[in-house]
Amino acid sequence: MRFFSDNAASVHPAVLEAVSAANAPDTAYDGDAISARLDTAFSDLFETQVSALWVATGTAANCLALAALCPPYRGTLCANDAHINQDEAGAPEFYSGGGKLITVDAPGSKLTPALVEARLGMIANDVHRTQAAAMSITNATEYGLSYTPAEVAALGELAKARKLRFHMDGARFANAAVHAGASPADLTWRAGVDALSFGFVKNGGLSSEALILFNRNLAEEVKVRRKRAGHLNSKGRFLAAQLLALLKDDLWLANARAANNGAARLAAAAGDRLLFPVQANELFLRMTVSEAADLRAQGFQFYDWAEGEVRFVVSWDQDSREIDALAKALSAL
Amino acid sequence: MRFFSDNAASVHPAVLEAVSAANAPDTAYDGDAISARLDTAFSDLFETQVSALWVATGTAANCLALAALCPPYRGTLCANDAHINQDEAGAPEFYSGGGKLITVDAPGSKLTPALVEARLGMIANDVHRTQAAAMSITNATEYGLSYTPAEVAALGELAKARKLRFHMDGARFANAAVHAGASPADLTWRAGVDALSFGFVKNGGLSSEALILFNRNLAEEVKVRRKRAGHLNSKGRFLAAQLLALLKDDLWLANARAANNGAARLAAAAGDRLLFPVQANELFLRMTVSEAADLRAQGFQFYDWAEGEVRFVVSWDQDSREIDALAKALSAL
Amino acid sequence: MRFFSDNAASVHPAVLEAVSAANAPDTAYDGDAISARLDTAFSDLFETQVSALWVATGTAANCLALAALCPPYRGTLCANDAHINQDEAGAPEFYSGGGKLITVDAPGSKLTPALVEARLGMIANDVHRTQAAAMSITNATEYGLSYTPAEVAALGELAKARKLRFHMDGARFANAAVHAGASPADLTWRAGVDALSFGFVKNGGLSSEALILFNRNLAEEVKVRRKRAGHLNSKGRFLAAQLLALLKDDLWLANARAANNGAARLAAAAGDRLLFPVQANELFLRMTVSEAADLRAQGFQFYDWAEGEVRFVVSWDQDSREIDALAKALSAL
Amino acid sequence: MRFFSDNAASVHPAVLEAVSAANAPDTAYDGDAISARLDTAFSDLFETQVSALWVATGTAANCLALAALCPPYRGTLCANDAHINQDEAGAPEFYSGGGKLITVDAPGSKLTPALVEARLGMIANDVHRTQAAAMSITNATEYGLSYTPAEVAALGELAKARKLRFHMDGARFANAAVHAGASPADLTWRAGVDALSFGFVKNGGLSSEALILFNRNLAEEVKVRRKRAGHLNSKGRFLAAQLLALLKDDLWLANARAANNGAARLAAAAGDRLLFPVQANELFLRMTVSEAADLRAQGFQFYDWAEGEVRFVVSWDQDSREIDALAKALSAL
Repeated sequence: MRFFSDNAASVHPAVLEAVSAANAPDTAYDGDAISARLDTAFSDLFETQVSALWVATGTAANCLALAALCPPYRGTLCANDAHINQDEAGAPEFYSGGGKLITVDAPGSKLTPALVEARLGMIANDVHRTQAAAMSITNATEYGLSYTPAEVAALGELAKARKLRFHMDGARFANAAVHAGASPADLTWRAGVDALSFGFVKNGGLSSEALILFNRNLAEEVKVRRKRAGHLNSKGRFLAAQLLALLKDDLWLANARAANNGAARLAAAAGDRLLFPVQANELFLRMTVSEAADLRAQGFQFYDWAEGEVRFVVSWDQDSREIDALAKALSAL
Repeated sequence: MRFFSDNAASVHPAVLEAVSAANAPDTAYDGDAISARLDTAFSDLFETQVSALWVATGTAANCLALAALCPPYRGTLCANDAHINQDEAGAPEFYSGGGKLITVDAPGSKLTPALVEARLGMIANDVHRTQAAAMSITNATEYGLSYTPAEVAALGELAKARKLRFHMDGARFANAAVHAGASPADLTWRAGVDALSFGFVKNGGLSSEALILFNRNLAEEVKVRRKRAGHLNSKGRFLAAQLLALLKDDLWLANARAANNGAARLAAAAGDRLLFPVQANELFLRMTVSEAADLRAQGFQFYDWAEGEVRFVVSWDQDSREIDALAKALSAL
Repeated sequence: MRFFSDNAASVHPAVLEAVSAANAPDTAYDGDAISARLDTAFSDLFETQVSALWVATGTAANCLALAALCPPYRGTLCANDAHINQDEAGAPEFYSGGGKLITVDAPGSKLTPALVEARLGMIANDVHRTQAAAMSITNATEYGLSYTPAEVAALGELAKARKLRFHMDGARFANAAVHAGASPADLTWRAGVDALSFGFVKNGGLSSEALILFNRNLAEEVKVRRKRAGHLNSKGRFLAAQLLALLKDDLWLANARAANNGAARLAAAAGDRLLFPVQANELFLRMTVSEAADLRAQGFQFYDWAEGEVRFVVSWDQDSREIDALAKALSAL
Repeated sequence: MRFFSDNAASVHPAVLEAVSAANAPDTAYDGDAISARLDTAFSDLFETQVSALWVATGTAANCLALAALCPPYRGTLCANDAHINQDEAGAPEFYSGGGKLITVDAPGSKLTPALVEARLGMIANDVHRTQAAAMSITNATEYGLSYTPAEVAALGELAKARKLRFHMDGARFANAAVHAGASPADLTWRAGVDALSFGFVKNGGLSSEALILFNRNLAEEVKVRRKRAGHLNSKGRFLAAQLLALLKDDLWLANARAANNGAARLAAAAGDRLLFPVQANELFLRMTVSEAADLRAQGFQFYDWAEGEVRFVVSWDQDSREIDALAKALSAL
């Protein structure tokens, strides 16, 4: 029973159908009729004019955005535990031409204005220190916490005051949005976000994420950078079709809701093992080595996060019986 | 009637079926059972142990290979008209950290030992000039020419003598192999090639190319670079499945043969308009502006290559009637 | 007798005196009193407010400027024979993060609007081709040709029309200015130049070149890039002092005039061997291998430029008797 | 009275004399007779064959070494407070093409095997995490602590076991060597160090540091990287001459001893204000804002390091009366 990662989940049948349906010859790259619908589809969703680009991975979406938001000789503020800092093999430094990540120790990997201001206060304003030019938050965070619109807006105000461009890594934006019960607009551009990496692959997609540019002036540059990074697929229509299929009838929200609900059921069973409140589809639990071994012996797969800590992730397609079984097993520990 | 680019062609039904069939949960990234079969499948094809990696685009395959074959402070020899020099938006320079492409004016974009030696002779052996560390050829070339095994081997010997790593951009390797009637092994590692970008997308694939490392010591580095470039798809099994579907029963050869045959029929009709012999699925023709307009008025789509020159590309799925129509129209010009 | 390179020349005594005179403790980096005088000194010379930075080498000056003028995903137009393309070991690509040099075949390595427009016309306006964002000329050129103010201004107009930032590599700006008989202002910002690498080391300096930013908005970025490239010397006052010594009483012009005059005397002796008119301190001559050997046997040192071509450079401190001797020897060939 | 930084100190007269004495024409770049003596001079000093290169700044020396020791897709371990991490404006990331610094919280900025092993233990061995390929220590450290040969050797053994290349930033290597009373060899290559940035500018030099490569296989690459970074001065003999002047009769040790002795006198006066033992020429003291203001009112210049902490640096040329005055003032606080 897989609670290892939502990356391992299956693809939603509607996505596969859309891929098959896209299989007529059309113009290459992003010149096709399906790709042409993305700007409108996402502009409708976000209630403002956006530029929307398909890219194959969240790492590519994040790093294309960061490279456009921060010059090589400046830095991007992020949580120390942020995926961009820990799990992308140095992709941000590669894409940005050596830009530095300026890391903030943040409980639950959640930035706050106070934490960011304190970190900025440590940077002497001279030519020797890397000055910050951008800020990136992850929503939901690496520990499964969801930002409220007000929390994002507070960071957005700081960004404006400090002249920082503002990026959101939304690998699990869907799960965050479901928990927040807020509109995509309120969680992003209305709160000052310039660019969003909008994750679909973990949430029923196949090979397509969306990079949403609220600051549309960035689009020309980002499109060149996408090509230059080898991310301009020649049959882009198959990536565009995936995104449209997940937007249709709010399938992306339904999938995320299913995952979040499963996580909530497990959270109830986990009780005071929880290291963080469960606000998306991930659980971080205190657990001894022998307890973990016990669970694994029962067939549950999960990730050893740190000493005495494990991570469970509920996928959009998780079988309800698996969730019941795990909830029972956690209660029984 | 599309003769614009094989990038616009449809996906072979067997590929779509394989994608659908891959839709069970499995380990993320390239840890799944389908990706695990790639090394063996390509080792069988190439009659030697290789490392085979899926990547989304030919640009990524090319540039991952080049970055591993040439350090940032050296250069890679290639034809001036090579795709890596002209059509990848500076991706080789990006991936290599600023490595230089050392371009060679080559008829038909086909390198020969004499041309390469002459170019090397222009580089004073000092610290001011960028010294060459690698060589890249395209097979079939940008003008649709196919290398014989002996031609590749002659370049391979030069590479060995000059201590150059040797890369082949095989965006249309299938078409070249069909024309050469040679084994994949004879066209590559037996002739000294270290790494091959093996194209599948133009030839019936959806979103997966293969990067073949004959020098398997490169694999660890290239896998990190793939991640770092945002090209480690989280559901990699869907990319692996495409490649296996096209390898099965030599579907890749059948598709390429169909395209080459179509091009040969057009070549016969084009007569002395041909700028180069047709050895793959592309035709480059002399054509006046009014002739081109005439063809377009008849519904044919194609690319204006240069002043007085046009390009036609035949796809694997090109309708035979379209080929007949175009052949007839060319004859009638 | 050295006619090999003006890089090998001696340092003017006034420069050495200024270095010694600078030897009192002062604030580190460029916070000292001598560095503080640079902006004013060069603003006076150029008759406009400029930002002036010391840097140790012409390569650093060129590449700091180019990195600020052209983003990594765009290209810089230059002559194929330009120093930045041929002799800086890929420094422009390194500093710019992989920006491409877009080379123009130009007689005498001298760009003209017609040549540049023709080259631009070869770049399809799409995401696959590297679009130009900057242009760099060398004055005097790699073949010792000097631009008139009108020639620079014509390129400046083209730059403006095409939205290209405009850089001048003035490794031998002094020699060019002497020949042109024009004011530094007319040769640069009044003609549309954004940044000038102003060479002093070949012209009597020790280890300091000036990077002049007519577009002062670039200064903040360039200063960070200078630090980041390891070019913010901790005792910068010794670099600043060199520049001020050469500016004082127009010593830079006197030195350049001496070198140009020597070259003119040689040009008269070289007659129809000259490959290019002599407009600075370099001569490029047709010469057979045996003639070159003959001269070397007489004690003259010079550079084999290409097959059948040699280069002589006259330095600011060249002994008049050496020039007489070489003139005589050339006449006698 | 300047206790702000040894960067602001004067140049030793012997260095200025050597610069003047070098002023005869000679071959450009590093082809001159004086540069040619460096390898031998430093090989004698280090009792083994080394390659020794002049470079203008410590940042350049550090980053050239790091770029050669660690590929772009790996990381370099260093103390969090290391100069390369905090004070070089991202130069290591620039030179290495985006290589990551993997920082270690280390008291006194001094690495130990235990600290390094603990940090390595936090890096999962997969393609997502940046794996370490090199380690860099500063000797003396950023807090003026000196490593013993045994301490360096313990790190050298770890480096060997973990396959890490080993770099030492010796901006104040002279001060460290004086304190350790150890031979340069014992502090470096005998302890496993591959490359040393050997600082001279703070210690009486003008504009020349030495990059010492114990692993001479690195020399070819580093020389190209030096050129490519714009650090191959055209009149390199003036940089080489400075180094030879400071090596002569152990002037470098005499200068460092003078600075260390001055610091020791201040340390005695500072008593329990000392945050770290004084093992080189720097003092870090606890001090209130009003105390600092009081000292400044008496004419002492120094650096506010952190809240409640200040730094004093004693230079090689510090006037003994200034040291007496400061010692007295510290005692009187």
